Amino acid sequence: MNHENVIRTLGRRLRLGLIGGGPGSFIGQTHRMAARLDGAYDIVAACLSSNPQRAHDSATGLGVAADRAYTDWKQLLTQEQAREDKIDVVAVMTPNDSHFEVCMAALDAGFHVICDKPIANKLADGKAIADRAKALQREFCVTYCYSAYPMVRQARAMVVAGDIGEVRQIHLQYVQGDLADHALPDGWRQDPLRNGGSLVMVDIGTHAVHLGDYVSGLRIERLCSDLGSAIPGRLVDDYVALLLRYNNGARGSLWVTNAAAGSEHGLSIRIHGDLGGLEWHQENPNRLLHRQKNGFEQTLTRRFSPQMSQESMRSSRIGVGHPEGYLEAFANLYTEFAQVVAARIVGARLNSDETLYPGAQAGLEGLAVVEATIQSAKSGKWETVEQC
Amino acid sequence: MNHENVIRTLGRRLRLGLIGGGPGSFIGQTHRMAARLDGAYDIVAACLSSNPQRAHDSATGLGVAADRAYTDWKQLLTQEQAREDKIDVVAVMTPNDSHFEVCMAALDAGFHVICDKPIANKLADGKAIADRAKALQREFCVTYCYSAYPMVRQARAMVVAGDIGEVRQIHLQYVQGDLADHALPDGWRQDPLRNGGSLVMVDIGTHAVHLGDYVSGLRIERLCSDLGSAIPGRLVDDYVALLLRYNNGARGSLWVTNAAAGSEHGLSIRIHGDLGGLEWHQENPNRLLHRQKNGFEQTLTRRFSPQMSQESMRSSRIGVGHPEGYLEAFANLYTEFAQVVAARIVGARLNSDETLYPGAQAGLEGLAVVEATIQSAKSGKWETVEQC
Amino acid sequence: MNHENVIRTLGRRLRLGLIGGGPGSFIGQTHRMAARLDGAYDIVAACLSSNPQRAHDSATGLGVAADRAYTDWKQLLTQEQAREDKIDVVAVMTPNDSHFEVCMAALDAGFHVICDKPIANKLADGKAIADRAKALQREFCVTYCYSAYPMVRQARAMVVAGDIGEVRQIHLQYVQGDLADHALPDGWRQDPLRNGGSLVMVDIGTHAVHLGDYVSGLRIERLCSDLGSAIPGRLVDDYVALLLRYNNGARGSLWVTNAAAGSEHGLSIRIHGDLGGLEWHQENPNRLLHRQKNGFEQTLTRRFSPQMSQESMRSSRIGVGHPEGYLEAFANLYTEFAQVVAARIVGARLNSDETLYPGAQAGLEGLAVVEATIQSAKSGKWETVEQC
Amino acid sequence: MNHENVIRTLGRRLRLGLIGGGPGSFIGQTHRMAARLDGAYDIVAACLSSNPQRAHDSATGLGVAADRAYTDWKQLLTQEQAREDKIDVVAVMTPNDSHFEVCMAALDAGFHVICDKPIANKLADGKAIADRAKALQREFCVTYCYSAYPMVRQARAMVVAGDIGEVRQIHLQYVQGDLADHALPDGWRQDPLRNGGSLVMVDIGTHAVHLGDYVSGLRIERLCSDLGSAIPGRLVDDYVALLLRYNNGARGSLWVTNAAAGSEHGLSIRIHGDLGGLEWHQENPNRLLHRQKNGFEQTLTRRFSPQMSQESMRSSRIGVGHPEGYLEAFANLYTEFAQVVAARIVGARLNSDETLYPGAQAGLEGLAVVEATIQSAKSGKWETVEQC
Repeated sequence: MNHENVIRTLGRRLRLGLIGGGPGSFIGQTHRMAARLDGAYDIVAACLSSNPQRAHDSATGLGVAADRAYTDWKQLLTQEQAREDKIDVVAVMTPNDSHFEVCMAALDAGFHVICDKPIANKLADGKAIADRAKALQREFCVTYCYSAYPMVRQARAMVVAGDIGEVRQIHLQYVQGDLADHALPDGWRQDPLRNGGSLVMVDIGTHAVHLGDYVSGLRIERLCSDLGSAIPGRLVDDYVALLLRYNNGARGSLWVTNAAAGSEHGLSIRIHGDLGGLEWHQENPNRLLHRQKNGFEQTLTRRFSPQMSQESMRSSRIGVGHPEGYLEAFANLYTEFAQVVAARIVGARLNSDETLYPGAQAGLEGLAVVEATIQSAKSGKWETVEQC
Repeated sequence: MNHENVIRTLGRRLRLGLIGGGPGSFIGQTHRMAARLDGAYDIVAACLSSNPQRAHDSATGLGVAADRAYTDWKQLLTQEQAREDKIDVVAVMTPNDSHFEVCMAALDAGFHVICDKPIANKLADGKAIADRAKALQREFCVTYCYSAYPMVRQARAMVVAGDIGEVRQIHLQYVQGDLADHALPDGWRQDPLRNGGSLVMVDIGTHAVHLGDYVSGLRIERLCSDLGSAIPGRLVDDYVALLLRYNNGARGSLWVTNAAAGSEHGLSIRIHGDLGGLEWHQENPNRLLHRQKNGFEQTLTRRFSPQMSQESMRSSRIGVGHPEGYLEAFANLYTEFAQVVAARIVGARLNSDETLYPGAQAGLEGLAVVEATIQSAKSGKWETVEQC
Repeated sequence: MNHENVIRTLGRRLRLGLIGGGPGSFIGQTHRMAARLDGAYDIVAACLSSNPQRAHDSATGLGVAADRAYTDWKQLLTQEQAREDKIDVVAVMTPNDSHFEVCMAALDAGFHVICDKPIANKLADGKAIADRAKALQREFCVTYCYSAYPMVRQARAMVVAGDIGEVRQIHLQYVQGDLADHALPDGWRQDPLRNGGSLVMVDIGTHAVHLGDYVSGLRIERLCSDLGSAIPGRLVDDYVALLLRYNNGARGSLWVTNAAAGSEHGLSIRIHGDLGGLEWHQENPNRLLHRQKNGFEQTLTRRFSPQMSQESMRSSRIGVGHPEGYLEAFANLYTEFAQVVAARIVGARLNSDETLYPGAQAGLEGLAVVEATIQSAKSGKWETVEQC
Repeated sequence: MNHENVIRTLGRRLRLGLIGGGPGSFIGQTHRMAARLDGAYDIVAACLSSNPQRAHDSATGLGVAADRAYTDWKQLLTQEQAREDKIDVVAVMTPNDSHFEVCMAALDAGFHVICDKPIANKLADGKAIADRAKALQREFCVTYCYSAYPMVRQARAMVVAGDIGEVRQIHLQYVQGDLADHALPDGWRQDPLRNGGSLVMVDIGTHAVHLGDYVSGLRIERLCSDLGSAIPGRLVDDYVALLLRYNNGARGSLWVTNAAAGSEHGLSIRIHGDLGGLEWHQENPNRLLHRQKNGFEQTLTRRFSPQMSQESMRSSRIGVGHPEGYLEAFANLYTEFAQVVAARIVGARLNSDETLYPGAQAGLEGLAVVEATIQSAKSGKWETVEQC
């Protein structure tokens, strides 16, 4: 991960403004560490709270100057737009139902945008964002961070290289226990009007869907869903199982829940093709299991195995046997985004294969699966997924 | 596993006759080793081939006297029936489509019967067998052997004891690669007229279904299936995924295939209730993972963990840390069956909780799920499973 | 594991007499199940107790006729010697300090002998047994059972084949918790006069030593030991660590204890040569880890991996993905011994590579290491191991 | 890991100067990412090369101003000392044999120092550094980074809390394959005059020793070593095995090598006390195995398990189930050091238990073990470790 490209390209770090992710936010912390790790950004503006004192304290605590500690995200956009030393990139970590409005305004103000998933709560809104980014020639990233792990990129590279042959079966899991207690935590996440219509699908299910699409290079064409709650009487959904048909005819299945008591994270993919299979677990991310049809089973480890692909190598920072984790994966998105933005600012071109982060398109694909899942749960039958 | 009960109860070993499972049969070997391990049986009669020379050689190679090396299974039944020192138990390892006829005849001849799964190819036939066994007061075992592993019995005991609370989610897998090659092996297994209508469900799917039922104490009430082949152009099915609803409202899913290239065995269960979850993998059978809602994760190992149940302890033979495997589990069925048969012969009663092997009932439940799976694959909708 | 060889070779099963291993003995149970699994033996005589009633009950409970349920092991030998249908093989499971006397008498009575390890408590006694067996042309097996696991035999075959190059490093562990309680169980095992001088080395250490020798094909030439107790004030040793030099110059180390609180079994070997390494853990015996110098790590599983050797294949009974365990390994010794004895009885010759069980020689090597370990603990320096 | 403390305490980030760790240095990259992750430092000065062009390019590529891109480390110290906005902290990543000179000069120039291990090549030199830091009231950190993993700190906290009782046995491993090729890489590391006298002990052995000391709270009192090369004819050592006696009487052993072909990283600790044991592997660092004497085995995972200690919680940044790795552990040292330095600058006091990084003392202890190891290898006997 060569962060120095950005300084070399641009003569400085990129200037980053934060919207959302204030005190107590897990994802806010994550975005900030990801932005810092490779030294490609300076965090120079932030709107972390609408309360003036908290906005000041939280931003200056990050090293932001007092006059750039905003209390209103719209103000951040307009005032930054007017500065000589204005920000280059806006990172959006607000509740899901505001992503559409914030992202559209940030693009309109001329900034490149990193948005936490989902890109929007409705597919139509997501499309509008994707169209606007394209029209205005702004870069856009949706932080489906798990596909940025080196060994996930290795898996994708092996599928592309034909190492497992034509893909025939995919099984996806994301089995958490966060919501296993009967009493739900308060917050917008539990409000179907604000969380995108399906808590379990929007919050974690789309991560699993993206992982499957990313590794296989395929898209889900049809699905049949069992969507609801594992906890009797709960009104928001916390369980989904899917039967899947991919666009090459491959079959798949998915089990995603945040109500499996005692579970920790549980994101995994297992994929089989004519010649073998691959299996990866986020809880042990530095290893990738490769099964070959003839019974030859090997474990690939980050940087160590001789078959390591370029995509995996450039997504990794440290030496053999020294584990990397979630923050490094998340930082891959930030740094790759910085490289593309810096290149665009100076009018350079990146080779297209140097961009690995998920763009607006990935965001749309996730929302289309959410909509088909809800539809199938109502109909009790297989439904078609809109191809975006 | 106290095999000596049988000799103590009866003053001798049980006399066992074998039908099927001749040279080259994996399952035949398995049944014979299972019968021998605890010394509860003498194998004294066998019909392993219809070819006289092979029948003689294969049976005498097992230590069977030449006059009890039969070439016709009907002859075995009638001639043994007439002997003073006749067999007590018949073990049936013939192709699936003959189970009905052989089992009915064996029961009618007065013998107790151990039948390899499935009990029959049609649910109606299975019911007839179950009824006949009951009417004639003969013992009957269907060798769903995986539920006889000590740690599976431990899982069941923990569910019964309420250790994971009310069961809410079940996920079953059986992911093999045996049929991943485009060219299928020859044999009756691949013939839908002989294999029970769905190769993947009958051959391995019902094992997974039984495992789920056994551990949870629940029954599948409704299901929605994706059944077919993962290999383009293949006519027999080798892939099934199911959405499940159990009779307490719990949700479940299942992924079973014998065409996942590079896979070995892959039978597993993961079950979650209000208070935690359990996970078991047949490839590593001496360990059971117990997750508790509060984040307390423990690995129980055979005989070692303080919570070990009676059911698990009596299903285990050797000391702490010395792994047991598939043959020991299979032998549990044989030895428990012997104990029940010996008790019946001398007119004793066993406490019902001393019988852990699956009877005809378990066989019927599996067939009912097969039928609903086929039906749902045709309708594209959820179907009800007949409760037997 | 083709047990039928014995019946085919001999026209009958071998007749086995048991000395020791009575009610409550873990190792007695093990020997009996191992003898039964492949159907190569009939247990026809036994001396399990010197108490007449217990001797009768325990032997007849195994199916032994009342007149062959002996109360004196010397009587067993003499009376069996006189019978027409006398036993072929004696299995010895008595306390260590009687092995010498029983084995010598059994050999002198003309029987082939399977003896639980150690072959004797003193190296000189072991040599006398080895010499006597050779002189009388009797077969002798010391049950170092762990080397009979299929994947251990695979490891040995891979070392022989040069898959890891010249062996350079060996690390052995046997980390149990059986004696972690300050209060020791009663019994001869804890009596230095009866247990061979070093509880930890004789009871479990020699298993680890044998495992290293077996896999590497090397012998320990010199060693430096730390021998004693991990429990303050305990007089018998329960801890040993060794620095090792093998006869090809390879370096090694060993950590063996039965006082590591919370530990289960913990026998393992890790071996590295010029080209790679192998690692095996008895608690997960169906898998063997193979590391290659270039970073290529593969897991070989019993019967499944394409490189599976003949030695491994013939040590395995059941299909791919169905785990085997300790009893199957132990039974390998019994059945291979039966094949050799049967061949000898009929005057046939076995190919030498068909014998894989450890003979008297292996027993001597273990005792020589025990003696050097005790010597080094006294001197505080490296000591030479007598090469037997 | 609350990095904001530093900005809140000091009103700014700490200013960091780098000496060593230039282009191509793995450890240089690591130090820089560790310094950046939590935003507690600005890297404002650097001497990465003595070649003017490379010094300029490498430093400005990190965002350092051209006039602070030094070509001579002495110049860095003197010129920074003279600046108004001078650096607060110097990080030293030069070859081992220069640590003494650079650290002494940096302390004398008034800076706080973070030094890559070893603190020096000779114990006497290390003591001089420790004394100087104390005399000048400067903070000093030696980057024994593995003890900064959250689960290692959890292990220490559990030992302190008595969860495994009095410590009785420790086993340490660090089994790498970096130097398994017969041809050694060039460089100072392979030069005994520059690497501290024992490549294997200084480079990786002291990490294992520190890990044992840190977790157990004990010190090695005596040892007996086998030190040399696993590769015939190699002159630098790449293999060491130790027999250990800790200062409470506990026994231990160690196996450390960088010549185990096919090995990756392989640092691990296993420790047993009266009541149970703990086991941790750096390659899977988010999990800690806890065995209890009664057979109760649990796996603790970062942040998730209810017993998680304060020391572990504050060493962790991200949510349950999201793995952290080596960089996060390394960053713990940097950020904790920043907190202590910032507090000292403003004259505040930190509670002593808020400092978890290893200081000069830890560096001395490692060197003392190196010296005793070399001594014992010569004498072939147990040697006493100097207590520093």
